[in-house]
Amino acid sequence: MACGKCLQCRTGEAHICQNVEIIGVDTDGAFAEYVVIPESNIWKLDPDIPQEYASILDPLGNAVHTVLAGEIAARTVAITGAGPIGLFAIAVARAVGAATVFAIEVNEHRRNVAKKMKADYVLDPSKEDVRSIIMEKTGGLGVDVVLEMAGHPDAIRTAFDIVRRGGRISLLGLTSKPISLNFSEDIIFKGLTVQGINGRRMYQTWYQMTALLKAGKLDLHPVITDRISMKDFSKGMERLKTGEASKILVYPNGVR
Amino acid sequence: MACGKCLQCRTGEAHICQNVEIIGVDTDGAFAEYVVIPESNIWKLDPDIPQEYASILDPLGNAVHTVLAGEIAARTVAITGAGPIGLFAIAVARAVGAATVFAIEVNEHRRNVAKKMKADYVLDPSKEDVRSIIMEKTGGLGVDVVLEMAGHPDAIRTAFDIVRRGGRISLLGLTSKPISLNFSEDIIFKGLTVQGINGRRMYQTWYQMTALLKAGKLDLHPVITDRISMKDFSKGMERLKTGEASKILVYPNGVR
Amino acid sequence: MACGKCLQCRTGEAHICQNVEIIGVDTDGAFAEYVVIPESNIWKLDPDIPQEYASILDPLGNAVHTVLAGEIAARTVAITGAGPIGLFAIAVARAVGAATVFAIEVNEHRRNVAKKMKADYVLDPSKEDVRSIIMEKTGGLGVDVVLEMAGHPDAIRTAFDIVRRGGRISLLGLTSKPISLNFSEDIIFKGLTVQGINGRRMYQTWYQMTALLKAGKLDLHPVITDRISMKDFSKGMERLKTGEASKILVYPNGVR
Amino acid sequence: MACGKCLQCRTGEAHICQNVEIIGVDTDGAFAEYVVIPESNIWKLDPDIPQEYASILDPLGNAVHTVLAGEIAARTVAITGAGPIGLFAIAVARAVGAATVFAIEVNEHRRNVAKKMKADYVLDPSKEDVRSIIMEKTGGLGVDVVLEMAGHPDAIRTAFDIVRRGGRISLLGLTSKPISLNFSEDIIFKGLTVQGINGRRMYQTWYQMTALLKAGKLDLHPVITDRISMKDFSKGMERLKTGEASKILVYPNGVR
Repeated sequence: MACGKCLQCRTGEAHICQNVEIIGVDTDGAFAEYVVIPESNIWKLDPDIPQEYASILDPLGNAVHTVLAGEIAARTVAITGAGPIGLFAIAVARAVGAATVFAIEVNEHRRNVAKKMKADYVLDPSKEDVRSIIMEKTGGLGVDVVLEMAGHPDAIRTAFDIVRRGGRISLLGLTSKPISLNFSEDIIFKGLTVQGINGRRMYQTWYQMTALLKAGKLDLHPVITDRISMKDFSKGMERLKTGEASKILVYPNGVR
Repeated sequence: MACGKCLQCRTGEAHICQNVEIIGVDTDGAFAEYVVIPESNIWKLDPDIPQEYASILDPLGNAVHTVLAGEIAARTVAITGAGPIGLFAIAVARAVGAATVFAIEVNEHRRNVAKKMKADYVLDPSKEDVRSIIMEKTGGLGVDVVLEMAGHPDAIRTAFDIVRRGGRISLLGLTSKPISLNFSEDIIFKGLTVQGINGRRMYQTWYQMTALLKAGKLDLHPVITDRISMKDFSKGMERLKTGEASKILVYPNGVR
Repeated sequence: MACGKCLQCRTGEAHICQNVEIIGVDTDGAFAEYVVIPESNIWKLDPDIPQEYASILDPLGNAVHTVLAGEIAARTVAITGAGPIGLFAIAVARAVGAATVFAIEVNEHRRNVAKKMKADYVLDPSKEDVRSIIMEKTGGLGVDVVLEMAGHPDAIRTAFDIVRRGGRISLLGLTSKPISLNFSEDIIFKGLTVQGINGRRMYQTWYQMTALLKAGKLDLHPVITDRISMKDFSKGMERLKTGEASKILVYPNGVR
Repeated sequence: MACGKCLQCRTGEAHICQNVEIIGVDTDGAFAEYVVIPESNIWKLDPDIPQEYASILDPLGNAVHTVLAGEIAARTVAITGAGPIGLFAIAVARAVGAATVFAIEVNEHRRNVAKKMKADYVLDPSKEDVRSIIMEKTGGLGVDVVLEMAGHPDAIRTAFDIVRRGGRISLLGLTSKPISLNFSEDIIFKGLTVQGINGRRMYQTWYQMTALLKAGKLDLHPVITDRISMKDFSKGMERLKTGEASKILVYPNGVR
């Protein structure tokens, strides 16, 4: 919920509002029985978009925002982390013309979903030499773009190792741990652009998402690994902990 | 053939070199028995790209340059004119995530090829009310982007009629006739960006083309309507005049 | 007054709102005894900005919007038309690092004010060969940027004649007359970017104006040629018609 | 010396050439009796530019490249480090319309030169609470842009503390020490853009420098603190070590 009055809100950057309040953090969120939402935070779902996608537009928006935060068409792209947002990012990057998509993920279940999302290469950093493979597949150049969605220090380290000179790293994954960088080698000599990506642009990202979904450019079904009834809520939480579920849809009145 | 020494050449804009010489215009071109070409004008075909595409990279480059001259992902796009470059532009726009592609073309043969290139809508301006249809399909907004590739005054007029406020018109099609515009209504109130597109960026466009072709993102075969042997050259020229051929490939030693 | 709900309003382009209503055109304006203005259209004047500048922020905003609509630092710039907005544009272009500013204006009074605004060259197109002079002063290249603020067909024609290959023309001046262009020669071969500029960005332009004025980067006093009391309103209108006044400030309770 | 053949060289990014060789590092440099330089590395000094500026175009280019690597007009800017490049950056930022320039530097001599370069505020981080002062002067917002030119971990830390949400940090200063960042707090939540800046753009920066110098927009004399004869070379080196000299010009045949 953006304030609408700060510099950022008034210059098309409401997603980084200085006084932002987050539904579910600063106010009751979707786990409450009732929530009050400002009219300006409601986005009407286009009738051509599958209804169950409504529940995953928030993380899809993160993916769309990150992928489209710089040039992407005809570029090689690596996505570190294949949680739901990383998985969505695979679909979005492919839909908007990324030439090659590398997905990097330690969790086997997630790697399998990444394959279903049609990443060109799905790499396991715990067993494979990610940098060597990417260097080989890119003719020794490195990737044009890294979308960092793991929020893990190792993944962030990898991002700087595999990006080409003049490339872009867009950081979305959160981590509480401080990370050490050699600014000269990692950023300056390479002439990198490193972006912090927060939330979704209001409302550019929403228009973009709607346009892509309506046109049928994104098949997100592999990310929805489970559909449960509200009464099975705790089982759903258990499933999440196993790392074998990506997105779990909860149906109030039973799965349809 | 760019001079390499003017402001444009030295600031990454060699495609609009002040002293450009065009092979086939300023020097002998591909119809001569032998031609001399500077080393810097040679682009090595990646072995993963179908060899016959080598002969159409020049117009494909025009299409890639035009499509990628501004934001295109998740946008609605109209392409006026479905000659070879317009047809290629359909494929490129789709490959890089245009949400909806309208192709506008009077020639029936070309409209048929436009359908094979998978334009979402193929419109005949001689029989259909293009503006009404586009306004209806875009919720009364108009398209985000127009790629003008007909070089005909009517098409240029249409471009300004169907683009939305704040949209982009990229002009590639050449016309010798002066065209009359009401600058206030057509450009200023709408806050348009109108771009003149010339040639292909050296060498950004070539890297982009290579990346898209190598990744298999572009199926250009429908545009190659004829394959002939060199000895049937004059028949090929006749075919072109009928308007029923798009690109004709000429094989020196017989069609393979 | 932007609607706040259309695509343009919701993607940072409220200045080209589809449903815009203009105060003074669609509603009573500043010549009415009382006007009602939405809270969102009020901009609080920073106390460090001279109070009389408050009355000229609207046209200054047009100038700031136009100058900053593309790269300007270290560029050569021609401004066609030295009415109030053109005059402001001279000051803004200089303040943000334009290397050379050419002002082109037929009216002698305005040319004199243009000199006071410190344009590097002030040219009279009715007597001087503007194109030759600009070509000579730019080493045969033409200017990087033209800001068209005259709204006269001759000035628009000049804009296309003096801009360099790959340059920018930003059109602000309105004209009701259709203008004829040879698109191939005038736009396409040159690889130009032609922009329609409308109003002021909400609110980016206002922040920019405030920052420049507050920092003392703009001396606009030469443009305020007259200060009159409200009771001399009709005399002020007469002065405007002579073409010898640029901006006339009207003081409700007598000039202070 | 760029290779001219890699992706970066061929897409207008020769300043981050993959195979770059640096004169003075990879080959004999300006301390050798004779050096061989490729023709393409020679830039002819415009006769309107003071001849002694020729010797400082290299670091001036770093400053111009860094300042113009993003939007700067009407922005608040902090420059961390007032060595020669930082000092030049003050002049450049002012010339291209930065609204307010903060210079941050521990060395007293350099702070004095920074004042002569007309920074709006010159702060000593060893004695002043830089963050508090900047927050106060920017209405609690932070600066729009930080140009990091100190290459010191404390300065880099400061850069992240004083930049506003959505701001830009351009890193030029080199440091061999690893620096620890909290990516979530420092980059992601703030939606920052962090750029590594290397060298000077070939040749865009050179055109920009020439245009600014030729137009008299930059007074660099305060940075030239010493002029010595070649025979006093060792004394000059001693002066540099005192930290009291910024740029020392060495005249082969005696100071003129």
